[in-house]
Amino acid sequence: MPISSMLTSISSSIANTSLLDQSTVIAITVFVALLCVCIVIGHLLEENRWANESITALLLGLVSGAVVLLVRKGQNSPILIFNEELFFIYLLPPIIFNAGFQVKKKQFFKNFSVILLFGIFGTIISFCLTALGAFLIFKKIGVTSLTVKDLLAIGAILSATDSVCTLQVLSQEQTPFLYSAVFGEGVVNDATSIVLFNAVQSIDFSDIDVLTALKLLGNFLYLFFTSTVLGIAVGLLSAYGIKTLYFGRHSTDREVAIMILMAYLSYMVAELLSLSGILTIFFCGIVMSHYTWHNVTESSRVTTKHAFATLSFIAETFIFLYVGMDALDIEKWKQSHASAGTSIVVSLTLFALVLVGRAAFVYPISTILNYTRRGSDKIEIKKQFIIWWAGLIRGAVTIALSYNQFSTSSNVHCLMITCIIIVVLFSTVVFGSVTNPLIQAVLLNNAKPSTSEENDFASFDDLRLMFLENGEPRDTSNGQSAPRRSNLELFIRYPTSTVHHLWRKFDDKFMRPVFGGRGFVPFVPGSPTSAAGESL
Amino acid sequence: MPISSMLTSISSSIANTSLLDQSTVIAITVFVALLCVCIVIGHLLEENRWANESITALLLGLVSGAVVLLVRKGQNSPILIFNEELFFIYLLPPIIFNAGFQVKKKQFFKNFSVILLFGIFGTIISFCLTALGAFLIFKKIGVTSLTVKDLLAIGAILSATDSVCTLQVLSQEQTPFLYSAVFGEGVVNDATSIVLFNAVQSIDFSDIDVLTALKLLGNFLYLFFTSTVLGIAVGLLSAYGIKTLYFGRHSTDREVAIMILMAYLSYMVAELLSLSGILTIFFCGIVMSHYTWHNVTESSRVTTKHAFATLSFIAETFIFLYVGMDALDIEKWKQSHASAGTSIVVSLTLFALVLVGRAAFVYPISTILNYTRRGSDKIEIKKQFIIWWAGLIRGAVTIALSYNQFSTSSNVHCLMITCIIIVVLFSTVVFGSVTNPLIQAVLLNNAKPSTSEENDFASFDDLRLMFLENGEPRDTSNGQSAPRRSNLELFIRYPTSTVHHLWRKFDDKFMRPVFGGRGFVPFVPGSPTSAAGESL
Repeated sequence: MPISSMLTSISSSIANTSLLDQSTVIAITVFVALLCVCIVIGHLLEENRWANESITALLLGLVSGAVVLLVRKGQNSPILIFNEELFFIYLLPPIIFNAGFQVKKKQFFKNFSVILLFGIFGTIISFCLTALGAFLIFKKIGVTSLTVKDLLAIGAILSATDSVCTLQVLSQEQTPFLYSAVFGEGVVNDATSIVLFNAVQSIDFSDIDVLTALKLLGNFLYLFFTSTVLGIAVGLLSAYGIKTLYFGRHSTDREVAIMILMAYLSYMVAELLSLSGILTIFFCGIVMSHYTWHNVTESSRVTTKHAFATLSFIAETFIFLYVGMDALDIEKWKQSHASAGTSIVVSLTLFALVLVGRAAFVYPISTILNYTRRGSDKIEIKKQFIIWWAGLIRGAVTIALSYNQFSTSSNVHCLMITCIIIVVLFSTVVFGSVTNPLIQAVLLNNAKPSTSEENDFASFDDLRLMFLENGEPRDTSNGQSAPRRSNLELFIRYPTSTVHHLWRKFDDKFMRPVFGGRGFVPFVPGSPTSAAGESL
Repeated sequence: MPISSMLTSISSSIANTSLLDQSTVIAITVFVALLCVCIVIGHLLEENRWANESITALLLGLVSGAVVLLVRKGQNSPILIFNEELFFIYLLPPIIFNAGFQVKKKQFFKNFSVILLFGIFGTIISFCLTALGAFLIFKKIGVTSLTVKDLLAIGAILSATDSVCTLQVLSQEQTPFLYSAVFGEGVVNDATSIVLFNAVQSIDFSDIDVLTALKLLGNFLYLFFTSTVLGIAVGLLSAYGIKTLYFGRHSTDREVAIMILMAYLSYMVAELLSLSGILTIFFCGIVMSHYTWHNVTESSRVTTKHAFATLSFIAETFIFLYVGMDALDIEKWKQSHASAGTSIVVSLTLFALVLVGRAAFVYPISTILNYTRRGSDKIEIKKQFIIWWAGLIRGAVTIALSYNQFSTSSNVHCLMITCIIIVVLFSTVVFGSVTNPLIQAVLLNNAKPSTSEENDFASFDDLRLMFLENGEPRDTSNGQSAPRRSNLELFIRYPTSTVHHLWRKFDDKFMRPVFGGRGFVPFVPGSPTSAAGESL
C-alpha cells in the first residue's frame, strides 16, 4: 500500500526533534484539515436541501476513519477513540451558549410551558418506556447479561435527543414555533437525560422505593432551578460589570474576552457544583444577549455575534466529524463478538424503542396541551408529527453517555456501544437529510405557518387597553369602543402576553437601569443597534 | 484551616456523579476565574504606566499558586505542573498569528535586515556565549554534574527572549522602529532558539566537527526558508479560496471559521513537518491580513480583527498566569536539595549570562549596521540600549524548553529549573514594569521618535519621478525641476523604498488580481475598508 508506507516513513522520519507529541500533532492536523474540507463542501452544497454540514461532516468522518484504519492496517488509532472530556468541556459549551445567545427570546418564552413539559416529563416517559422495552425485548432475543443498571442507562442514553443537528434542519424563520419547541425541548432534554443517567449511576437498586423516586424528582427540580438561577446570575454579573467598569473605554478586546470567559465560567462552575452546565450556559447566553450585549461597544457587538456563531459552528462540525470517525473504533467492533444478525436485531430494537418512546409522550402531551389552547393556537396533528420526527435524531450526547456506561471490555457492553453508534449514524443521516424536505412538504405547502404563531399574543387593541388601565393613556382620541377587559381577564385569556407585558414593565423599571440593555446603554448612546438585538 | 477543610469537604461531596474528571473541572474553573480577575485588574490599572496585564497575571498566578499549596497542605497539585503541549499547541499559535495579522507590515519589512541579523546571528552569539559562560562559571561555584548537552541547552534556553511581554511594553505607535525591530527579532529569535535547542538534543557530541556546524547552519536556513514559504502558501491559499468560492454569499461564519482553521492548520502542518510553526503562522498572519482579510464581508472583517486580538489577549494573560502558578511546582523546589545561597548564586549567574549574552550582540551588530546607514537613520546609542533592555525579558518559551530539557528527577536538574524560573519571574516583573517608563524617559522626552522612522523612504518627489520613468506620467504641469535619478541610483540610495515600490507594482499587477486584497475585492465592491487594512 503506497500511501500507508509513505505516511509511515514520514512519521518515522520526523522523529523526536519536535517538542510536541507527534500523535497529537497528527490528530489535530487531520481534524483541522477535515474541518476545512467540510466547510468548503458545506458551502458548495448550501443550495441542496437534502444535505447539510452535519451529514457532510459525519460521512467525511466515516470515510476518514476508514482511511485511518487502512493506513494503520486495521490497528486502532488514538484519534478513533471517543473522548468524553473533549466533548463535554470544549465542544458542547460553545454550541449551547450560542443557542441561548441567538435564540428568539420572545418565541422561546412564549412556548416555555410546552418546552418544559416535553423536556422534563416527556424525557422521563421516554426513559421509563425505553428501559422497560429493552428489558422485555432483550430477554426474548437472547441478550441476557445486562444488569438493571445497564437497562436503565440505556433508557437515559436513548432519551437524549440531538439538539445540534435539530438546529440545522429546522429554520427559526420558517417555523418559529417548531424551532423553539423542538430546540428548547432539546436543551431541557439534554439536561434531563444527563441527570437521569447520573441518578441511575448513583442509585442503589437493592433498596428502591417510592421515596427514592420522589427524592429523585425533587433533586431534579432543585437542579433545574439552581442551574437556571446560576446562569442568570452570571449573565447579570457580566452585564453589571461591563456596564459599571466600561471596558470599552480602553479596549474592545477586554469586553469580548470577559464575555467569553464569564460564559464559560458559568458552565464550569455549574459542573463543579454538579449542576447542569448545559442549562446554566444556555440561560447565561439568553441573559447576555438581553443585557450584556447592549452594554459593549459597537465593534464588540459585531465581533461577539459572529465569533460566538463561528465557534459554535466549528464545534458542531467537529462533533459530527468526530462521531463519524469514532464509529470506526475497531476494538469495540471486534470485542462485541456478535454476528451481523445479532447487531442488526439489537440495533433495530433500540431504534424501535426510540420511535415508540418518543411517540409515547409527544402525542399525549400535545393532546393535553390542546385542551388548554384555543383555535389556531392548538398543536395540529401535522405539527405533532414534525415534533415527533425532528426529535428522533440521536447524537453526540448519546454516544458520550454510552461510552461512559459501557466502558468495560465485556462482549455485551461492546455490542451495546456499536449498536448505539449504528442508531446514531442512521438517525442522523436519515432524519437529518429528510426532515427539512418533509417540513416543506407537510407544513409549508398546506398552511401558512405564521398564522398560528402570532395569535397567542393579545390583539393590539387589548394591549392598548391594558396600557390605558395602567394609567398610561395614549391615543384615546380615535374613539374606539372596544370592550374594556380587566387585567385578570386578560391574563386568563392571554397568559403569555400578560406575563410578557408585566415582564417588560419590570425590566424597564428595575432591571435595565441596573444591568443595561437596549435603550439603557450608558456610555455609547448613539451607536446603532442591529436587528439581532431583539428584546425580550 | 477553615478554607482548606471547606474546599476538601466540597470536593468530596461532589463525588463521582459528574461525567467529567473533577480535577480538570476545578483546574479550568480556577484558571477562567483568575483570567476574569486579571482582565478587571488590568482594566483598572490601564492608566498606571508601571503595571500591565502580564505582570498582574504573573503576580496573581504566584498568589494563587501559594493558595493552592496552602489548601492542599504543601502537596503538589496537577495544575501547578507546566504542560508544554498546552503552551505550544493552544496558547502560542494565536499570539504569534495575531502578531503577524496586526503588525504594521511597512515597518516590519523596512527593518527586515535588522530583524534577521538580530534574530538569527544575535541569537547564535548569545547561545554560544551563554553556554560557554555557564561552563566556566558553574565549574567555579561547584555545580559540576551538568553534561555538555545540558550546558548547550542552557545556552539555547536563555537565548529565547519573550516576545509576548515585549508586545505589551513597547508601543507600535510611539516607537515604531523599536517595536518592529524588537518584536520581529523576538519572533525570529523564538524560532532560532527552538531550532538550536532541538539541534542540541539530536547532535551526537562525541563526533562533532566543522562540517556538523555548517550542516546545522544550512539546516537552519533551510528551515527558515521553508517555514516562511509554507506560511505564505497557506495564507495565499486561504485568500484564493475565499475569493473564488465567496463564502460570504451564504454565511459570514464560514469565512471566519476558514480563516481561523487555515491559520491553525499552517502551524500544525509546520510542526508536523518539523519546521518552525512560529515562523509559519507569523507569515500566514501577514499574508492573511494583506489579501484574505480584504476578500471577506465587512462584518467578518470586524469580527476577525477583534476576535484574533481577543484570542491572543486571552492566551497571553493565561500564559503569565500559568507561569506564575507553575513557579510553585513544589516538587522541583524540594528535589533540588539546594540551599537558598546556592539557588541565589546560580540564578544570579544565569541572569548575568542573559545580560552579557544580549549585550554581546546588540551593540556590535548595531555598530556594523550603522556603517551602512545614513544620518538620522542610524541606530543611536540610546536605541541600542533600549533594544538590549527590552529583549532581556525571559518568558514561557524559556520555561517550556527548560522543562523539556530538565525533566529527570536529578537534583541538579531541579536546581536548574527552579533557577530558570527565578530568572523568568524576576526579568518579567522588573523589565516588564520598568521598560515603558524607561522608554518615555530616555527616548520620547529628548527626541522626536518619528523623524528617523520615516526618512528611509525616498521623498515623494523621487517616487513620483520613478513613476514618470516607468511611463506613467502624471502631474507634470507644475514645472518641477528636481533632478531625475535612475532606478539604480534610487535603489542604492533608498533600497527599501525601491524594493517597496517594485513590490507594489508586482502586487498590483500579478498578486492582487488573483488573490484579492485592498482595491481588488471581487464581490463586495462598495464596502468601506477601515484604517487597519494598511497596505504592504
